[in-house]
Amino acid sequence: MRKINVGLLGCGTVGTGVAKILIENKDVIRSRVGADLNLKYVADIEMQRDRGIRFDDGVFINDAYKVVDDPDIDIIIEMIGGEGVAKDLILRAIDNGKQVVTANKALLAVHGNAIFKAAMEQGVDLAFEASVGGCMPIIKSLRESLVGNHIKSMAGILNGTCNYILSRSTDDGSSFEAVLAEAQKKGFTEADPTLDIEGVDTAHKLAILTSLAYGMEINFKDIYIEGIANIAPMDIDFAGQFGYKIKLLAISKDVGNAVDARVHPTMIPFDNPLSSVGGVLNAITISGDAIGNMMLYGYGAGMMPTASAVVGDIVDLARNLLTGSSGRVPLLSYQMNNISKIPVIPVDEITTHYYFRFSALDRPGVLSKISGILGDYEISIKSVHQKGRKTKGFVPIVMLTHLAKEAGVKKALSKIFNLDVVSDKPVLIRIEDENQED
Amino acid sequence: MRKINVGLLGCGTVGTGVAKILIENKDVIRSRVGADLNLKYVADIEMQRDRGIRFDDGVFINDAYKVVDDPDIDIIIEMIGGEGVAKDLILRAIDNGKQVVTANKALLAVHGNAIFKAAMEQGVDLAFEASVGGCMPIIKSLRESLVGNHIKSMAGILNGTCNYILSRSTDDGSSFEAVLAEAQKKGFTEADPTLDIEGVDTAHKLAILTSLAYGMEINFKDIYIEGIANIAPMDIDFAGQFGYKIKLLAISKDVGNAVDARVHPTMIPFDNPLSSVGGVLNAITISGDAIGNMMLYGYGAGMMPTASAVVGDIVDLARNLLTGSSGRVPLLSYQMNNISKIPVIPVDEITTHYYFRFSALDRPGVLSKISGILGDYEISIKSVHQKGRKTKGFVPIVMLTHLAKEAGVKKALSKIFNLDVVSDKPVLIRIEDENQED
Repeated sequence: MRKINVGLLGCGTVGTGVAKILIENKDVIRSRVGADLNLKYVADIEMQRDRGIRFDDGVFINDAYKVVDDPDIDIIIEMIGGEGVAKDLILRAIDNGKQVVTANKALLAVHGNAIFKAAMEQGVDLAFEASVGGCMPIIKSLRESLVGNHIKSMAGILNGTCNYILSRSTDDGSSFEAVLAEAQKKGFTEADPTLDIEGVDTAHKLAILTSLAYGMEINFKDIYIEGIANIAPMDIDFAGQFGYKIKLLAISKDVGNAVDARVHPTMIPFDNPLSSVGGVLNAITISGDAIGNMMLYGYGAGMMPTASAVVGDIVDLARNLLTGSSGRVPLLSYQMNNISKIPVIPVDEITTHYYFRFSALDRPGVLSKISGILGDYEISIKSVHQKGRKTKGFVPIVMLTHLAKEAGVKKALSKIFNLDVVSDKPVLIRIEDENQED
Repeated sequence: MRKINVGLLGCGTVGTGVAKILIENKDVIRSRVGADLNLKYVADIEMQRDRGIRFDDGVFINDAYKVVDDPDIDIIIEMIGGEGVAKDLILRAIDNGKQVVTANKALLAVHGNAIFKAAMEQGVDLAFEASVGGCMPIIKSLRESLVGNHIKSMAGILNGTCNYILSRSTDDGSSFEAVLAEAQKKGFTEADPTLDIEGVDTAHKLAILTSLAYGMEINFKDIYIEGIANIAPMDIDFAGQFGYKIKLLAISKDVGNAVDARVHPTMIPFDNPLSSVGGVLNAITISGDAIGNMMLYGYGAGMMPTASAVVGDIVDLARNLLTGSSGRVPLLSYQMNNISKIPVIPVDEITTHYYFRFSALDRPGVLSKISGILGDYEISIKSVHQKGRKTKGFVPIVMLTHLAKEAGVKKALSKIFNLDVVSDKPVLIRIEDENQED
């Protein structure tokens, strides 16, 4: 039986899951691969904690560089995370000619172009299925299953923490703060949930997917990002009355010579299958010229679902090693010389549907003032609703628009905010509704 | 630029879609694969029909054997369907050392073991993603992404015609016959929809998936099959009142040293994501020890979605040829020597929840007689409902059960049918409800 030596760097939550699968499911993996995946080393600086796994003597060590430099190791699994030592170790592993598996979306989103270039120059494979969508095979789908398609767009719920918070708020009207506090208490969130809540984690993932879909360099910095901290239960409630749910969506569209890529709370109609994706689940819809729409759905985080994706990657690389076919699939889905710098359009240039909520005095003439300003910026109103109760003389006025330009919308809302008849900052939530044409 | 020569056998609906993608999306495919997929021949006996494609001179021919025997052809795409000439051509292509792509589920379900054996002996790859679930990458997921998992179960909506009929009946109460007639008129169905309606097509697909999931020979003949022709609008309506939808489900479960594999109309709760899969869409949930649950969702049939899966397969085989790695992934997911004959348990041995509907006289003592017989066979009733109106003195009595054995259920229903107080044959619909434990 042939043997592939695997070295695991980082034995936190997902790393522990990977070790568990490689040890506990060794037999079923061997029966599929026809070779043994031998976990030769597990390196972690925290050596005392009980991970519920019995490693053979000498397997668990504290020096990750020893693993990366061991000539017997075929595949390095980087599960440390972050942009510091993880980057250094990956580059050194590549330099040593090792195949690499990582789930490190932050690192790939920010330094991916350089890392992938290094891997391609060394002729080693770098697999990263677990960096986006946990167990869902979104990266394999883009790189392999959908190669016959021009990808037209993608829309994904890619952060379980945000989806849990929004789903709970939708179900029982709890506020953002209350649900977050509860989730932290239950240990559902990262120690510091800022990257999740602010949409940065989702944008890291979107940057990777967008590169794979359209054949462009990874461009994280130009993605527009807006988190969920300002979503009020009132807006979730009103959305429901219009047949919409609010989700933190990663949106990516081919707009011809450019890409529209953004992350923000988004209203989607109930008949969009993403609207029924609740709790910590993730899902992504992909639209292509041949497939129409397709959706993947599953656990986007957590020890074992993410570890499942990592092991899928390890097996892919092991199969390449066993058949001498490293580089069989181009790392970023397109051949190196077909990857270009496609620009991401600034959010001010997008055209979409909007939900606005104004806090305005309940007095004749107010609506005319607001709609007059909207009209000045060519924002056409689809419907107006006076909702809920008066607070200190102000009532919520809710509007849904026809297609409008973001730049004009922002200018109009800023002018409306300056009216004395309007109190709080106007609320703006973008809508993705394929049922509404104009 | 390297070139891979492709020969297409059969230019019907899906074959035409494959040709369209290979010709119209040639550039994007080349930019991903780094080679040209050259459609050297398209063979079809019907040469006159306009397929909306401009083939180069000499490409369109009527002799499939010429394609299979051409030494320049690298990959054969069998899109003829059926178990006759398609089988002969595939075996001859394998014999000639060609890689093969097919979407022919009927052929693989019935003759797959022999065909895969021949391919493995010749060392050629045979790809069949498009045989199940159209564009959804279910076969790639089982063979590659989920290799770290013990697959525990799968449940799928795998036939668009049946799902369309059941969805329409659910939405507007139309009868099976009415919706089928309409679907045939609109051209949504096969010329002869019998294989669809009777569940045979779904079972062909389930036989393939079950083999891949558990490492067993393909065993179509032992799968229990029940179609949708007898589903009455009344039962769809009652199901809805209990929080269930009726779907034609392909079910496959690892029950330890055996597999429970069956196709029948099934009630599933609204919170099961399969319940909201409407129209001609397909979806499948896969449960594994690491992933928990995952779902794939998309168009399971139709020209372009199915062709997308075929082209994904062609590219996989082309990449194997370009890197000399044919046989990289075992055809049936497990290494040949790890594939065994795992038995499929007879449906009489399953234990599940049931929905019964009896047509009984509205008279004291009737319920006691029926429930007495059920008790004799250890069928415990969860709830009883007298539903709807009296017809010729008979009323519908609906029951939901706790877990019960199929063998006992059948005997009990047969005895109940013999009661003079019961008119029509009792209706039995199985329920898959993970929320209900006993």
